[in-house]
Parts: sequence; C-alpha cells; structure tokens
Amino acid sequence: MRKNPLPAPLGIGLIGTGFMGRAHALAFRNVSAAFELPAPIHLAALADADSARAGQCAQAWGFERSHSDWQQLIDDPQVQIVAITTPNHLHFPMAMAAIAAGKAVYCEKPLAVSLAQADEMRRSAEAAGVVTQVGYNYQHNPMIDLAREMIDAGELGEIISFQGEFSEDFMGDPASPWSWRCEAEHAGGALADLGSHLLAMARYLLGDIEAVCADSSTVHRQRPATRGSNEMRSIAVDDQTHALLRFASGARGTFSSSWLKHGYKNHLSFEISGTRGTLTFDQERLNELRIYRSGATGRDGFQRILAGPAQAGYAAFCPAPGHQLGYNELKALEVHSLIQAVCGVGKRGPDFEEAWQIERLAAAIRLAAREQRWVGLGEI
Amino acid sequence: MRKNPLPAPLGIGLIGTGFMGRAHALAFRNVSAAFELPAPIHLAALADADSARAGQCAQAWGFERSHSDWQQLIDDPQVQIVAITTPNHLHFPMAMAAIAAGKAVYCEKPLAVSLAQADEMRRSAEAAGVVTQVGYNYQHNPMIDLAREMIDAGELGEIISFQGEFSEDFMGDPASPWSWRCEAEHAGGALADLGSHLLAMARYLLGDIEAVCADSSTVHRQRPATRGSNEMRSIAVDDQTHALLRFASGARGTFSSSWLKHGYKNHLSFEISGTRGTLTFDQERLNELRIYRSGATGRDGFQRILAGPAQAGYAAFCPAPGHQLGYNELKALEVHSLIQAVCGVGKRGPDFEEAWQIERLAAAIRLAAREQRWVGLGEI
Amino acid sequence: MRKNPLPAPLGIGLIGTGFMGRAHALAFRNVSAAFELPAPIHLAALADADSARAGQCAQAWGFERSHSDWQQLIDDPQVQIVAITTPNHLHFPMAMAAIAAGKAVYCEKPLAVSLAQADEMRRSAEAAGVVTQVGYNYQHNPMIDLAREMIDAGELGEIISFQGEFSEDFMGDPASPWSWRCEAEHAGGALADLGSHLLAMARYLLGDIEAVCADSSTVHRQRPATRGSNEMRSIAVDDQTHALLRFASGARGTFSSSWLKHGYKNHLSFEISGTRGTLTFDQERLNELRIYRSGATGRDGFQRILAGPAQAGYAAFCPAPGHQLGYNELKALEVHSLIQAVCGVGKRGPDFEEAWQIERLAAAIRLAAREQRWVGLGEI
Amino acid sequence: MRKNPLPAPLGIGLIGTGFMGRAHALAFRNVSAAFELPAPIHLAALADADSARAGQCAQAWGFERSHSDWQQLIDDPQVQIVAITTPNHLHFPMAMAAIAAGKAVYCEKPLAVSLAQADEMRRSAEAAGVVTQVGYNYQHNPMIDLAREMIDAGELGEIISFQGEFSEDFMGDPASPWSWRCEAEHAGGALADLGSHLLAMARYLLGDIEAVCADSSTVHRQRPATRGSNEMRSIAVDDQTHALLRFASGARGTFSSSWLKHGYKNHLSFEISGTRGTLTFDQERLNELRIYRSGATGRDGFQRILAGPAQAGYAAFCPAPGHQLGYNELKALEVHSLIQAVCGVGKRGPDFEEAWQIERLAAAIRLAAREQRWVGLGEI
Repeated sequence: MRKNPLPAPLGIGLIGTGFMGRAHALAFRNVSAAFELPAPIHLAALADADSARAGQCAQAWGFERSHSDWQQLIDDPQVQIVAITTPNHLHFPMAMAAIAAGKAVYCEKPLAVSLAQADEMRRSAEAAGVVTQVGYNYQHNPMIDLAREMIDAGELGEIISFQGEFSEDFMGDPASPWSWRCEAEHAGGALADLGSHLLAMARYLLGDIEAVCADSSTVHRQRPATRGSNEMRSIAVDDQTHALLRFASGARGTFSSSWLKHGYKNHLSFEISGTRGTLTFDQERLNELRIYRSGATGRDGFQRILAGPAQAGYAAFCPAPGHQLGYNELKALEVHSLIQAVCGVGKRGPDFEEAWQIERLAAAIRLAAREQRWVGLGEI
Repeated sequence: MRKNPLPAPLGIGLIGTGFMGRAHALAFRNVSAAFELPAPIHLAALADADSARAGQCAQAWGFERSHSDWQQLIDDPQVQIVAITTPNHLHFPMAMAAIAAGKAVYCEKPLAVSLAQADEMRRSAEAAGVVTQVGYNYQHNPMIDLAREMIDAGELGEIISFQGEFSEDFMGDPASPWSWRCEAEHAGGALADLGSHLLAMARYLLGDIEAVCADSSTVHRQRPATRGSNEMRSIAVDDQTHALLRFASGARGTFSSSWLKHGYKNHLSFEISGTRGTLTFDQERLNELRIYRSGATGRDGFQRILAGPAQAGYAAFCPAPGHQLGYNELKALEVHSLIQAVCGVGKRGPDFEEAWQIERLAAAIRLAAREQRWVGLGEI
Repeated sequence: MRKNPLPAPLGIGLIGTGFMGRAHALAFRNVSAAFELPAPIHLAALADADSARAGQCAQAWGFERSHSDWQQLIDDPQVQIVAITTPNHLHFPMAMAAIAAGKAVYCEKPLAVSLAQADEMRRSAEAAGVVTQVGYNYQHNPMIDLAREMIDAGELGEIISFQGEFSEDFMGDPASPWSWRCEAEHAGGALADLGSHLLAMARYLLGDIEAVCADSSTVHRQRPATRGSNEMRSIAVDDQTHALLRFASGARGTFSSSWLKHGYKNHLSFEISGTRGTLTFDQERLNELRIYRSGATGRDGFQRILAGPAQAGYAAFCPAPGHQLGYNELKALEVHSLIQAVCGVGKRGPDFEEAWQIERLAAAIRLAAREQRWVGLGEI
Repeated sequence: MRKNPLPAPLGIGLIGTGFMGRAHALAFRNVSAAFELPAPIHLAALADADSARAGQCAQAWGFERSHSDWQQLIDDPQVQIVAITTPNHLHFPMAMAAIAAGKAVYCEKPLAVSLAQADEMRRSAEAAGVVTQVGYNYQHNPMIDLAREMIDAGELGEIISFQGEFSEDFMGDPASPWSWRCEAEHAGGALADLGSHLLAMARYLLGDIEAVCADSSTVHRQRPATRGSNEMRSIAVDDQTHALLRFASGARGTFSSSWLKHGYKNHLSFEISGTRGTLTFDQERLNELRIYRSGATGRDGFQRILAGPAQAGYAAFCPAPGHQLGYNELKALEVHSLIQAVCGVGKRGPDFEEAWQIERLAAAIRLAAREQRWVGLGEI
C-alpha cells in the first residue's frame, strides 16, 4: 500500500471505441486495481467520431467526458496520455498532433501505413522528448518475460535457431469479405497484420535481424466487397508469407504468417533453440512455456511451466499459480509499462523507435518476397 | 449501446481486501465495460477491519468510501449488494445482517462453517426474499456453459459416467504451515476448500447426487504453527478425499480432491461420458473443451474446442476466438450473473439454496468417509 | 554377441491363432532378433482346432508343425513352453494338462473363469515346480519399468495416491453384439476384461491392496445375439465399474474400468502421487511418461519423458530415442521375461500366484459392488 | 488364409548388421506373420565383413547362411532381393553389383554419396529392369497413408502451405564426436541425414518442388576425433538448414532440419494446410494425426485421430485401435511394399528414380544455401 502523498493523476485520453478501444478501456480500468502505480490515473476523455457512441461508451467505461473531434481530446489539458486505437491510416495524423501537443502517445500497431510516416513519427517523438509506446501487447505476457530472462541468463546456451509463426484463419473462408485490411495502403495483409507481432517478438527476445529472404502469396485474389455481395474486389496483399531470418547474433530461423491457416485462432508461436536447450511458446496457451534443458538429468524431456506468481506480472493479478491470465490482462500489463515509462520508472514497452525498426524489417521481407532474393536490412 | 434512460445505479458494498476482495473489485470494474448491464453499478463502499487499508484500497480500486466496521457498510443506504470475501467463519454473521437489512448478498464459498448455519442462511434469505449468490465462479466459464448446452441437448447421449478431480499442491510441502484452512470448524480441509467447487460443478452439469461412498486421509498430521516455526500443530482435516458418486439420473462416478498433489495448480477437471460421446475439461486450460462424438465420421478422435465469441460470455470480453479469458474474467462473469439476478433477468448463479445443497453433499461425503460406508443424501 | 556354445533350444508350443495367437507368434519371432537370449528358442508347434488353419498359420508364422488337438501339442517332446491364447474357459484344462506334463506355461489373462480354478492352477504349478507366466503384457513396457524404478528409489517420496483407469469403447455402441465377453461364467465384463490389467499394474507398482469399495453398472442390458440380429440377449456383466482402493502401504486411490467410454481405445492410464512428486502414464501414448518433481527448481512443471535406449527393454529394439516401441514389442518383452524365467535368470513377469492375487482383488471388487460395502481382501 | 499353392520363396540377402541391419532383420521376420504375402520369403543369407559376427547374427536372426564377402551374397542364386544397410559410400558399388546380377535392390537412404552416383544407379536399374526400393521408411506409416488419402480426396481443399521439420539432438552436445556423418563425401550433415526424409515426405504428399531458397550453418566447427579425445577435427557439413519451398502445385512452405535441436529425438513433423482444413503430424507420436476441418460444425477444433485397423497397414499388426505400431513395424510395412513391388502388385515405395529426385532436391537446397539465392530445380 502506498505510503506517500499521491502525485497528481495522469489523465488518459482514448481515441476509438472498437475492439481495441474497449480493450484499452478494460486495461486502464484493471491496471489501478492490479498495481500500485507510480502515479494515479484518471480516465479523462474518450473520443469517437460518432458523438452519441462517444458519450455512451464514456459513461459505460468510466471516462469523465467525451468528444467527437479527436483534436479536442488531444488539446484537453486534463489529458497527459493519448491512446490511439483507430484504423491504421489515422495513426500518423493523431500521433503527430499529440506529439506536437507534448503528450505521451500510446498507439496501436502498426505505427503507420508507410515506412516514411513511421520514420517521421519516431523522429518527431524523439525531437519532442515525449514518451511513446506501441501496442505489441503479446510481449507483455509474464511468460515472455520469463522466456527472455532464461535466454538472457544463458539457460539455453548460445541461441542458434528461431522458428516463429503467427497464423490465424479469420480470412480462411474465400467468402470472408474485403476490408481495409486487404489494402496495402492501409498496412494490410497477413505480414503487416499478424506477422509484425512476430517480428516484434523475435527482436524483443533475440535482437537485431540483419538479412531476410521471403516468399509471399495471395491465394484468394478476389473477395466479395461485403459479406454475401456479388461484387468482387481484387486483393493484392499477401495471404501468407514465409521467410528466412538471419540474426545479427548468428542465429538463423524461419518466419511464417498467414491469415488463411484453418484451425488457428491466435497462433503466435515460436521455438528458440540454443546450444544447451530449447523453449517453445504458443499464444493459444498463453500461460504456458515449454522448456527442455539438455543434460539436467538422465531423464530429459520437455517441461511445461505454468504461469504463476513467481512472475511479477502474473502476481499483480493473482496470488495463486495456474489460474491463468487472459488476453485483456496482457493489455493491462502493457498499460502498466506505459505508465511506468511516463513516470520514468521500470521496464519500457516498444516505443516509436522500436516500432519503426519492426516496420523496417517488415519492409525488408516485403522487398525480398517481391524481388525473390536476400535483402540486407542495410538496404532499407 | 443503451437506448433508454438509465435506472438508478446499484450500489456495491465489498467486505474484505484479500485475494478474493481484490478479485471482486477487478470483477466489478470489468463488468461495466464488458457488458451492457440491466442497471448501472456504483462502487459505493469498501470495508476492512484495518481502517487505513480500507481507505487505501478504496482509493486504488475506485470505491467511493471506506469503513472499518462492516455493519456500517451493510447499513449504508447507497449499498444494495453486499459482497462478502472475509474468512469463512464471518460469512454467517455478515450474510445474516445483510439479509436482515434487505440487501442482496454475494458471498464467497463455502456458505458457512456448518451445515446448520448454511441451513439458517438459506431459510432466512428465502423468507426475506433477497437475492443471493455464492462464489462458485468456475461454473461461469463460457466453456462450462458450452459443456452444459451439449449435455442438455443430448449431444453425448444419456450420461453414464462422471469422473472429477480438484487437486492443487499448495499444501504439498510438509513445511507448509498451519492456517485456518486446517481447522474443521473453519470449514477447512481439501474437500471443503477445493472439493466443494467440484461438487458444485457436478450438480450444475448433471443434477442431484443421491448416494456417496468416500475415503479421506490426513497425510501430514502435524504442521508448523507458522512458516519455519518449530512449534507444531496437529491437523485433523483431510489432505485428500476420494469418493464414489451415484447420480439421481443413474450416472455413476468418482470424485477426488487433494491439496497435496504435486504438479497441479488449479486442476479442477472432469470427464463426462454418455452413450454417444465424451467430453473433458481441465481448469488449468480453462479456454478449452475436448469432445469426442461417436460415429460422426469413420475418423473419430477427440477434438479440442477453443473458446471464442460463439460463447456469449467470451464475446463480452473479446470478439476474436482463441485469445483466452483469464481467471479474473470468470469472476466478472459471475458478477454479471449476480447483477442480472438482482435485476430479475437472465441466468442465475448458485444461490444460498444451491450452496446449502452443495454443503449437504460435502457433509454426506464426510460421513461416508468417517463411517466407511455408503451414505444416502436422505440421511443428511 | 554370444561367445559360448548354444544350449539346446527351448521348444515353443502355441495354442490358438486369433488376435493373441498372432501377437504371440510375432513376439516369439521378434525376441530372438532383439535379445541375446539365455537359450535359443525353436518354434516347434502350433495348435488350432481347425486343422487347415493350424497348418496355414504354422507355415506363415514359422512353426515347424501343427496340431488340431492341443493335447498332442502339450505332449510333444519338442515343446518345453506351452503358450495358451484360447478363450478364457479353456485356460484351466490346458494349463492343468501342461503342468501335469511338466511344461512351463505361458497363459493369457485372465488366468481362469473362477477364483477356485485360479487357486487350483497356482497350487498345481507350485507343486509341480513349473515356471508360469500370465499375459499382463502392459507391465513389460520399459516406461513402466522406469516408473517402478522411480517409485522404488523414492523419487516421488512416500506414495499417497493412485488414480487409475482402463477404458475402451469397443462395446460403446448398443448395437455391438453379445459375445462370450458378456458372460460372467467366461470371465466377462469390463472389470475382468480390462480392469484386471489395471489391478495388475497397481499391484506391480504399489503392492498389496487391502480393502476396496466399488460400484458397477450394466448400461446396455440387452444386446443383439449377433451383429444386426433382431434376437436380443440379456447381459448381466458390468459395463463400467468404479472403485475406491486402500493400499497396504497407506496410499489411497480410485479405480475405473469401462468398455463403453467413447473416445478411448486403449486408455490404461494412471497417476501416482507421493509426498515429493507425481507421475502419469497413458497406454495410448505408451512411449511417454510425465513426471513432476517438487522443488527441483523454482520453475517446476510436468516433464514429458520419451522412451529411449536408457531403458534396457527399449534398447533391445532400437538404439535411438524417441523412435517408439509398439504394442507387439511389449509382447516380445513379455516373452523375453518368460524365457529368462524358464532359464532361471532376470526379471520375472506375473506368474500364476500373482495372477491369482489379481483375480482375488477383482473378486473383492465384485463383492463390494454387489453388497455396496467395503470389502477387506481377507474376506476373499 | 492362402488358398492356392505357394509360389517359390523369395530369397532375401541382407548386407550389414548394424542398427539398420537388425531393423531389416526384424522387419523381414515380422512381415510373414503380419501379412499374407504374394510370395513367401526365405531369409537366405546375411553378409558382414566380420565373418564371426556375420555367423552369429545369421543364427540369431534366422538367416540360413552368412558371408563375409558381400559379392558372394549378391551372387548367391538363392538370393533374389539384396538389402543394403552399410555405410553410405558402399551403397553405390553394392547396388550396382546387385543390378548387374539382375537382383532386386533394397537400399537404405541416401541412395549414394553424390548426385552423379545416384543418377547412374537409377539409370542402371531402369536399364536392367530390376525392382528397386529406398528406405524412406517413415512414409510407410499408415497414418501417412491416411494423410495422403485425405489430401488426394480434397478433404483439405487446395493445398496452400507446407511447413516441415526434421530435427533431432544427437549431435547437440559439442562433445559428440566426429563420425562419417560429419563428412560431405559420405553424404553427411543434417540436411542429408535427416532432412532428406522430410524432402521425401513432402514429395510423397504434395508432389514436385520447383524452387528453393536456403540457409545452412555449422555451429560446432570442430568436434573431438573420438569421444573424449583431445584431438579435434574440423567439420564442414551443416548442423542446421532452413529453407523456403515452392511446390509445382503453387503451395509454398518452409523446411528445417537440425541435428542440434535439444529436446527432439525423432521430430519429423509437418503441417499441411489447404483452403478447407489443416493437418499436422509428428513422428514422435507416430500413431496420431491431427486434423482441422473448417466449417464442419459451429464447434470446430483440431481433432486427434489415433491409428487403428481402419488403416490397412495397422490392421496387419493389430485388430484393436489405439494399441500403437512401433518404429520397427514401419520397417516391416516398407518390406511389405518391397515384396509387393517384386511380385508386381500393390503400392510401391520410393524407387531409385524417386530417390534420385529427392537427392536432386537436396542438392538444390545445398546450392541455394551456398550461393544465398533461389535455385530452380531445372538448374540441377
């Protein structure tokens, strides 16, 4: 329990009320009860272009007031942190406005719809000295912290291979209609939508990747304009992308991303192998990590570790092991990182600089697939 | 989104600030953002005997005021629902006071420390006409709803067997010290602490149990008074209990409960088999259900179903399948049932009447173990 | 490789050419190539009441000659070991004749169709001094050897619980017709057919059981006389039996056996838990053992051990780990035990004495179910 | 059972008495008892350069006579099928001699130590009209037959991706010494030793691969000359290779092979995904196949199919499902294909022509890795 007088609360301004908007709202509501925060937070304002919806969601989710004009939210003096959960093409103008206003920016991934925009965003944030964070929420999982600890402590020896995949099947039905996710200019496609999370994870756990080779395909080249419609729209973005990765450390690996792979719902998975052991993770069982340590006993075998309060991020939500965190709690852990970063303490999540690196890597994969050759990151 | 004027908010009064107190607080905070409630809720008051802690938790968790005297909380006119998360022996006086005040009561399990108390509580609640709910939270899991739907729809045929277990290992170390959970008069022991959840589940899914036979053992008959202490205290409650169950429907089964079983952290698991299929569940993977349907194809096999938005309780938290709910969200789903019950709509969780039935069943198991014979429920 | 002159070969006489007959034949053919045997073996004679079938199988399986009269096989001076794989009611006359002829007897389970017969068989074998072995083949699995080693070495601490089940679904369809397995006088029913293997395993791993309580049910009380027939026959044997077990060691446990449980094909499974750890096994993945050791590290979890050449029985068939033995190789390992026993060396499989103990235990379970009470083994 | 007079037996001549020699012997012994063969077989001769060992193994394994000179075995008029299980560099001279003698040839993989040799072997066999088969035994698994049936029947829709891996860890310890497997001129390295099995599988299930890109690394560049030795030898072959695959059908995929990956013992695994479903297989659980069918019900999920007698190859060994085949029985199934091919009936395993195609593909991967570019199969 807190012993000192509380600092002034941090005002939160949230833009967007879709899936991610609500996930942010749940996260901001959870984080105060779960953690002793370095500063209290205040749900100051919610913005949605639909004024009525903005008001209703603000009331239901506990935000003090609502706006239909996001610029007003950014200008609100009670707002210190601007959370952006709108469609991808709006990330750039909103984040740039927030930076200009000197506010901390918490933006969903991808950072922007072009590498040039992403570059401008990271430079502007750097110049303005504002705290930024991008929503690569999966890496805030306590089991990922544990994986990183084990890797960093050398428990797997020198890392020699990474095999990662992020597949889902929400576009697997050819009748799944066109959406903005099917447009390259909105950062669509399986690589951008799903694969970028995996690239973020690979970099978080194993550091820089210096060269890639890749292959992409668009299996369903037309989709209905809307569900059930006879009007068909052409699709140019990738349905699936496979790649080879070379890490700066010398490790090698494979990358796969698909939104057509039937049976997978949130299959962000990887296996990391070193000279002394192997670990595997699958987001579809986010509270588990499997590890094999060579030579520990004469009776080796993969061991399934269940999340528990030995991991700090888990303990914040539950004192008993094996009870399991959910997806929304990963988002609350992400918000915790954000608040710590704003207060200048603790571990930081990926900021605009790191998000730009992730998008640079995605761009290299896209180039390698287009030109069917290895691409060094130095080319991007 | 809501279209009509909001009714007056339901005031929540929470007693207790431990593991369960915080879990309730998280749940009440989550439920408003996840559901369109039949009435808004207001976090009116928090009580803890430690006045300073009461105030700090109230602030961190968003309760309007705090009390060190729980009777004041119950008397607070802004409180319509009293949530009780204190040690077991306090459930009776608090619930009876809340009933006397005409408040709805939401009580953690077990209902009371004796069957006589439980009986008095259910009768008083019935007489007073107040809504009650007891915290058998595991049955609010959407996958359990799905299991029940499948059973009720006859997808497994006529049910012929149930095999259930709830084991953990938090007392597995002989050095784990004595606590009130080790006292029979505080409703301690593995059967009461863990097993009662399994009995609740068996009844929820398959109805009345009419006879039991059982065997209990206390493996560690002494434990340190406190961790590391040389003072030893005698232990008389069960460390593990196994039982045979006869359901009124004709189904037969086994029951096991242990708090010594190394490797299990939240292993509330069961297998239900009928004349046409089998399903299995394990709370350690709470977002999964395994089902086998006979004869569906020539290529039968157990199928793993992942929780997704096809289950309403899941959809409230996440629109995408496979992303997983956590333990705390089951608690929010329980709170949703409670609010629905208070507003007279929707599915109801187990009330004091049902909780008494569960404890009656536990009492039958205790008697069967003590006298080493079959016990009919009519004897209790 | 062998260095000394080979002893005279042991002549094998096999009675029966069904599923088990062929399994024995495969086992006797495999064992010579897999092991350096203490004595060479010779496939001397095969008997089947159908003379033509006897001849054809003898040729295909490599037996020197065939008989349609099993007594001739027993009398054959080239036969030293008589293997009996006929229907259960023939075990007694055949084994008694073989014992009378001073031959070693290798009999499929169950030993006999009544406890009185079994008792006479074990006494006669003891008096005659012949080597006997009964086909509880599952316990010859190298992973079971490993489990026993771990238990005996105290790796799990003091054993406190056993939960075992042997379920299949081959009678799950109500249209599955009557067969001799449905007759009590042929040692039919799920308990005798499947459950006896589990009792054998429990005794092999944890020793004597001193008291039981049980519950049996016959779900399908009539079955077609033959597949598709309109003629129905009444069924009195158990479709499923559940029991509580008390071991002489103080461990407690549960037992389940069913031939109706949809989804299971060879689900001989158990979990054994002690004061320091837990292990689990499922025959449907016969090359795996899962173990949890408490406190080994701060990152505990169940570990999956794959069979490999560290287990001697595995090494006999394959020098590389993880390649997997099959069911038929367990039978070859059983034959290896038999030949060792006949030659007076090495580990012995369950003999007539032990098989009688297993059937005594099954009889106690049957009595406990019939009279709905605890039964001490001393009563049987 | 056979009704016609038996044809003259096929004489088997086996060269080599190591791991694979014994596996062949077990397979030839098993196949007669498991199958009604189109012609009986006769274990005619066994050859090993060590004359004493040849004699001892011949006796233990049931071969009529032995040779220390393999040419004598090939010339033996009682030998119709020559089985070659010697180190890789001897495959070429032995197979060429057998072809010259007009014998059927059954050769362990890889076919040869160079693509030129392999090419000469397939041309010679073709010219001589002899039956050939190469030991890619994993594809004789009944579950692989089932996978192929499902794919060919369109149960997965149009195949769009393949992700395969064959990893083990037998060289994972840097102290694992040099062996001939570490020499490129003996067809050493992880790609040749393990990866070639995966390439065989990919071709068997999905047909021609037309282009590849790859990356190989040698992690441990020196190994002890012998176990424990201080003398170190340089290693140039790959420890791990990753690749991208483009199938002629349009499917895309990834390939991985490693002999350093801790925790894996026989991890020949793949996932094949199409427009209507996904299947996965892992040789470490060789009796299982996992399949997901989209849209079959509203409650989709991966289903685990256990091997059973619905698969013909399984039924040959066991009439009951779920009992499991072992690795050695895959070898017996391979021998069954061989005998069928020699008799001109039934399914054929991969012959020298197919084995050359597999090695051509491995050569393309090697070239792509060396030159760090995509390689079309037409270049090889």
